[in-house]
Amino acid sequence: MKDIAYYNGKIGPIEEMTVPMNDRGCYFGDGVYDATCGRNGIPYALDAHVERFFNSAGLARIKLEVSREELKSLLLELAGKVETDGNIMVYWQATRGTAMRRHGFPDGKSNLWAYIVPHELGDMKKGIKLKTVEDTRFFHCNIKTLNLLPNVLAQQKAEESGADIALFHRGERVTECAHSNISIIKDKILKTAPADNLILPGIARAHLIKKCKSFDIPVDETAFTLKELMEADEIIITNSSTFCGRAVEVDGIKAGGRESGIIERLQKALMEDYLEETKAK
Amino acid sequence: MKDIAYYNGKIGPIEEMTVPMNDRGCYFGDGVYDATCGRNGIPYALDAHVERFFNSAGLARIKLEVSREELKSLLLELAGKVETDGNIMVYWQATRGTAMRRHGFPDGKSNLWAYIVPHELGDMKKGIKLKTVEDTRFFHCNIKTLNLLPNVLAQQKAEESGADIALFHRGERVTECAHSNISIIKDKILKTAPADNLILPGIARAHLIKKCKSFDIPVDETAFTLKELMEADEIIITNSSTFCGRAVEVDGIKAGGRESGIIERLQKALMEDYLEETKAK
Repeated sequence: MKDIAYYNGKIGPIEEMTVPMNDRGCYFGDGVYDATCGRNGIPYALDAHVERFFNSAGLARIKLEVSREELKSLLLELAGKVETDGNIMVYWQATRGTAMRRHGFPDGKSNLWAYIVPHELGDMKKGIKLKTVEDTRFFHCNIKTLNLLPNVLAQQKAEESGADIALFHRGERVTECAHSNISIIKDKILKTAPADNLILPGIARAHLIKKCKSFDIPVDETAFTLKELMEADEIIITNSSTFCGRAVEVDGIKAGGRESGIIERLQKALMEDYLEETKAK
Repeated sequence: MKDIAYYNGKIGPIEEMTVPMNDRGCYFGDGVYDATCGRNGIPYALDAHVERFFNSAGLARIKLEVSREELKSLLLELAGKVETDGNIMVYWQATRGTAMRRHGFPDGKSNLWAYIVPHELGDMKKGIKLKTVEDTRFFHCNIKTLNLLPNVLAQQKAEESGADIALFHRGERVTECAHSNISIIKDKILKTAPADNLILPGIARAHLIKKCKSFDIPVDETAFTLKELMEADEIIITNSSTFCGRAVEVDGIKAGGRESGIIERLQKALMEDYLEETKAK
């Protein structure tokens, strides 16, 4: 198949797949998700993504109907059905059941959704342009929920301004991007906001931190300001399909790109990890 | 029909209605909604609700595919098909189209959803118990969006504690309830938070304000604190099916209920308005 979608055991092409109108995802955004890239039918860092998914579900009090092992088996099985020589995006979400609309939790079981499609990795050679947007989101940004309207609006605003990615800040404090984490390098130290309730604990961010430490680049998990961002030697964007992107512009002003060598080394090592884990078996 | 659901022109019983998995409502909560009660096939205060819906869509930058008049005609037509001697809930939402998941706006048209079901009005004789919950929502509470996970979690917490409704506060400041506005009466003055981005501009709240003014009860649209709440003479809860509910307890402590007469008079007048507008034609 060219792509595949899954809903509670039903499988089909994503464009044909339907779900009950009364799924609580449809009217409350009452669900959590996770996603990762992969290739050769192998989702990258699947253990970590599934672990985060279970944590999101726990924080959102959604009882999953599958175990970690069952979910991993399912995603591997679905990924194996998508025919492509390139990379894939593996996306899945759980919603708090199907019921008539009322805020309190319903009886009955949560629903499991998934889809897998061919997907290009982020181009790490591209200089990323950022657009700053005030972070008006809720205080549950550590949970990967389906409540993403502020992210949608911010990203659209960024794209309309000619930028690539919306960068959120709460007042002076930089939080993260609309669908990515952000870190800076200054004086050969990596600084990145702590994984509290204002940011998503990115798997790619965790990989970056680990790789920096292995390269003797100290890591300071402390929030930084917009001023620090503009004075940084390098600005690094990470998400599940961009393992180490380099930002070069903020609101039309040149930024980062002042520390030759470190980013290239991180990019190479992080891509090697991906290629190694997802190589054909 | 006992109930009716609608999706982009398709009509059926709500339990059988399905929607495309790739509707952006399903994975971003990327939509806005409105709802009102009614009877005899007549949605109450429909003009005001449709106006608010268009305002929500405008703030969320969702281009609707219907005019105000077309939407009102559609809802009236659907309401006319539901057979019941009692009251109904008329609910509708628009989502930002159907497309593969990416944050920026998609090409194509927005989707229109609706359903109508028999629905009991809130019992205005009941003393409502409130449970305070820190307001961790986003800063777009003036838009009636499908991003309602914090409301869901708060309401569930309230119900588990034996209360009826979750009451949000940002620090000391009372905002609103999980699916209702809140106002207080103190020294024969109605005090209610201003309709800024921290609360939903309730239609029932607007009716309450108007009715108070007509009764020479002055209205002060200024936010009040938890302390003021506990010292209030009366605490009034309003939503689209409870025109003027009386709260009598906050976190297990007796509150309100100290000003005999005013609430009963408001309840009677607001119910009369409802019965008049929705009487059989």
